[in-house]
Amino acid sequence: MIDDKDSSQNWTILEEKNVFSARPWLEVSVQNVQLPNQRIVDDYYQVWIPDYVVMLVFTDSGQIIVERQYKHGVRHMTFTLPAGQIESGEEPLVAAKRELLEETGFVADGWESYGNFVVNSNNGCGRAHLFVAREAQFVQEPNSGDLEEMEILLMNQEEVIDHVKAGGFATLPPVALIGLATNSLFM
Amino acid sequence: MIDDKDSSQNWTILEEKNVFSARPWLEVSVQNVQLPNQRIVDDYYQVWIPDYVVMLVFTDSGQIIVERQYKHGVRHMTFTLPAGQIESGEEPLVAAKRELLEETGFVADGWESYGNFVVNSNNGCGRAHLFVAREAQFVQEPNSGDLEEMEILLMNQEEVIDHVKAGGFATLPPVALIGLATNSLFM
Repeated sequence: MIDDKDSSQNWTILEEKNVFSARPWLEVSVQNVQLPNQRIVDDYYQVWIPDYVVMLVFTDSGQIIVERQYKHGVRHMTFTLPAGQIESGEEPLVAAKRELLEETGFVADGWESYGNFVVNSNNGCGRAHLFVAREAQFVQEPNSGDLEEMEILLMNQEEVIDHVKAGGFATLPPVALIGLATNSLFM
Repeated sequence: MIDDKDSSQNWTILEEKNVFSARPWLEVSVQNVQLPNQRIVDDYYQVWIPDYVVMLVFTDSGQIIVERQYKHGVRHMTFTLPAGQIESGEEPLVAAKRELLEETGFVADGWESYGNFVVNSNNGCGRAHLFVAREAQFVQEPNSGDLEEMEILLMNQEEVIDHVKAGGFATLPPVALIGLATNSLFM
């Protein structure tokens, strides 16, 4: 196992200055950091974006809840999975259940974490929390509050994988979760 | 298949203004966008970070090349895979071969793309290009030019998967690639 208590290679933040702020969406800071070899780097950038949840959810008939939506980071339509920002102080699993209900109108049982990961190893860019849920049931009309119109689709796992292979899922976090959660080595 | 030629839901960028620039590492712009329902949003942020490659590389004896390094976005040591920024005008596959040689001293055959994905669906944050390569051979001492000291390890696939499960890989892009490339449904 990795020894992440080994702090001998850690950088020391000598100074941090906010250079751009648009909370609650985005914040950029520049850091003056000292490396273990004593070298000083005076312009190392960190990007704060809210942490978020991504969910692979199977309905009670075994289908996967997929969304089809224009995403501006991509500049075109894409398939994606239910996902959303974690609110300040909110537990990731609570956020996952809240976002699933808001975006899709489904409630699920049997939630399982597939880990959480810093998105960019140098700059940060938020942390993605990955979840799988099963036996989801439709309980109310969705109301995502998103800027984008959203179409909700139910697909079997084979269709989802075919769409990933064909490039129909254009963004990394849902593809990461699909890769892990349908991988027999990770079950 | 998704119809990404369907532009009926596309947003129109009415105006874009650079609000923070630290090329070649980072740039932030704010856009004034018009939605399909004619609504105007005057503060939608886009984050430019260079596109990058991530590589799952098997040596000629079937082991996977893993790196162990302090990453400042994580704030501690982590396992990761060979990866690096694509230079301006460089083909992703050329970047992958260049970075593999620089970081690890290995040269590989049989390169295969596992797709490329926008990292953040709303803000962009660069595009990750995922590759698998096989039959890698060590040809020269590595010289990554990274700020961080790096340890290069050879692990079998089972060890890599155990480390992912235990949280030893702290960042999303290598985990996404490991999930896909070791998944029998994606081979």
